[in-house]
Amino acid sequence: MKRYRNGEVWDFENQMPVAAGAGDVILGLDGGTTSTVCICMPILPFSDPLPYPVPVLARAVAGCTNHNSVGEAAARDTLEQVMAEALAKSGSNRSAVRAVCLAVSGVNHPTDQQRILDWLRDVFPSNARLYVQNDAVAALACGTLGKLHGCVLIAGTGTIAYGFTEDGREARAAGAGPTLGDWGSGYGIAAQALTAVIRAHDGRGPHTMLMSSILGKLGLSSPDELIGWTYADPSWARIAALVPVVVCCAIAGDEVANKILFDSVEELRLSVKAVVQRLGLCGPEGKDSFPLVMVGGVLDENKRWDIGEEVIKCISKDYPGAVPIRPKVEPAVGAALVAWNFCMKESLENAFKS
Amino acid sequence: MKRYRNGEVWDFENQMPVAAGAGDVILGLDGGTTSTVCICMPILPFSDPLPYPVPVLARAVAGCTNHNSVGEAAARDTLEQVMAEALAKSGSNRSAVRAVCLAVSGVNHPTDQQRILDWLRDVFPSNARLYVQNDAVAALACGTLGKLHGCVLIAGTGTIAYGFTEDGREARAAGAGPTLGDWGSGYGIAAQALTAVIRAHDGRGPHTMLMSSILGKLGLSSPDELIGWTYADPSWARIAALVPVVVCCAIAGDEVANKILFDSVEELRLSVKAVVQRLGLCGPEGKDSFPLVMVGGVLDENKRWDIGEEVIKCISKDYPGAVPIRPKVEPAVGAALVAWNFCMKESLENAFKS
Repeated sequence: MKRYRNGEVWDFENQMPVAAGAGDVILGLDGGTTSTVCICMPILPFSDPLPYPVPVLARAVAGCTNHNSVGEAAARDTLEQVMAEALAKSGSNRSAVRAVCLAVSGVNHPTDQQRILDWLRDVFPSNARLYVQNDAVAALACGTLGKLHGCVLIAGTGTIAYGFTEDGREARAAGAGPTLGDWGSGYGIAAQALTAVIRAHDGRGPHTMLMSSILGKLGLSSPDELIGWTYADPSWARIAALVPVVVCCAIAGDEVANKILFDSVEELRLSVKAVVQRLGLCGPEGKDSFPLVMVGGVLDENKRWDIGEEVIKCISKDYPGAVPIRPKVEPAVGAALVAWNFCMKESLENAFKS
Repeated sequence: MKRYRNGEVWDFENQMPVAAGAGDVILGLDGGTTSTVCICMPILPFSDPLPYPVPVLARAVAGCTNHNSVGEAAARDTLEQVMAEALAKSGSNRSAVRAVCLAVSGVNHPTDQQRILDWLRDVFPSNARLYVQNDAVAALACGTLGKLHGCVLIAGTGTIAYGFTEDGREARAAGAGPTLGDWGSGYGIAAQALTAVIRAHDGRGPHTMLMSSILGKLGLSSPDELIGWTYADPSWARIAALVPVVVCCAIAGDEVANKILFDSVEELRLSVKAVVQRLGLCGPEGKDSFPLVMVGGVLDENKRWDIGEEVIKCISKDYPGAVPIRPKVEPAVGAALVAWNFCMKESLENAFKS
């Protein structure tokens, strides 16, 4: 991969005049394990509710930016590249950037946050506000239109549940990657399915339709070849791409596939429950209302075996006040709205002081 | 890592005269996911039982040679290097090699075998007999002194059960690596323990002593840091090295750690059972005698929580004819004895023909 250590990625700023009438902008970035999206949004006038659709000047897409998956340097290069592309496409440049919110998977600890902030500070003008969050924060905000309150459940290649109280406390569950037990994720579901094939083949587990379906999908002739296939490429997304095969087998009545999906529902429910309990989002009686934002390919609706719907059913039994939201804007817009909310709050506070 | 593509690894043959009286030799190699051992053995006279201890001229040690873990080229380089070292140390060279048995983890399919045989053929004289096997074969043979009959259970960083009938049929279970459900392995045990720490921390699982013990062992201050630690290095052996911490916690009475170890015993039992059933090693009445060879760090005896002993207890209930063997020679010697057995059989057959 090309590296942009010397800042060539920003060369467009010298070659392209800023469009007449262009105003200040906000960058919102959603960096996942499979792909990364950056959007450029104009500074919105303070209004409640927000204008809908949320205005977006430009959108750029890149690959994985989880440093745990691709490494620190590659993640940084891709982040810089996709932000530069979004700015260039919107006819703007860095001097117009009022705020940036990078919501990136793999940000699990204040040191992760600080490491990204350190280089980000060198990229943008000193008056730009910079926020670095776990990508779950953008996912929550795309359901709540920037308000950090409630719980989001993400289940795509990976999975995490993340929540905020209205007074700013936060908690998370799962999001620790495949080695550390994210069994409800797309990767988790697919790895369980691959495992079921191996176990059926070597006599440790029951016969399953997953065997012919997965081998057919991958063009392999024997389960023994699955071992080589699995370790030929360590990408988590490549494994997770088998989820639709598992869903098809479950719909066709395969018991092993059905068990895997029900186990995944239970895992996802446990993650949400852990966050809701720790934050007390459901109130002392367990019945308070809170947003429950559902994001990610595993939770997409309109399938005959609807994992997201099953999770909502379980959670609604546990917490009748949970308000399920399937967001209409994408997480990158959520990230931009988080930055915009922070800026707005700061302006209001400053107005009060003066 | 240095690459030996041009054969410099064999330069010693031009510089070192072969020792006077040096005879023909056999190379036995045991290539695991953590380390690789190659021994050089003189051709033994045909005798039953074998001389004990088995004579070994030289021994060389190297790192991982599982191509699924380190890649094809690195695995080949390490294999050539460690064989050259064993030959050089024994004062011999390739012209004296009568047979080679490479028993390497990651050999799961005839195509894996053929790929290794292809380059091995170019390394050794044309009259040398070459055998490529899964490393489980060497482990079985080190318990049975070269005879391929019975079942071996290996549980180190990885795990596999492998068996042979006296008439040459073979079967295996597990051995598919961590993504594909080798839950009874050292990696499996340690990954479950790490997962239990994350789950206790985020509220999905019960409190466990594993948290303070593992963080203490790794010098980390918070479970959040475990995520970065886990993905900083994809080596399976590094994770598996936490098994002793799990055993200590189980001995101290921690329920989560105990459950992980009992689950691992059950997984290992299932693997052995699958092989024994498929091969009919226990005979039609289920009571025939067969060797059950136990190999690998997870099964080492003399611990107060003895995983191997627990597995033997379970298997003996299933199959009273199972004869547990804890081998006294190492698997690399087993590999050499496999090669020696093959050579002996061939000579006998030729003697009959003439």
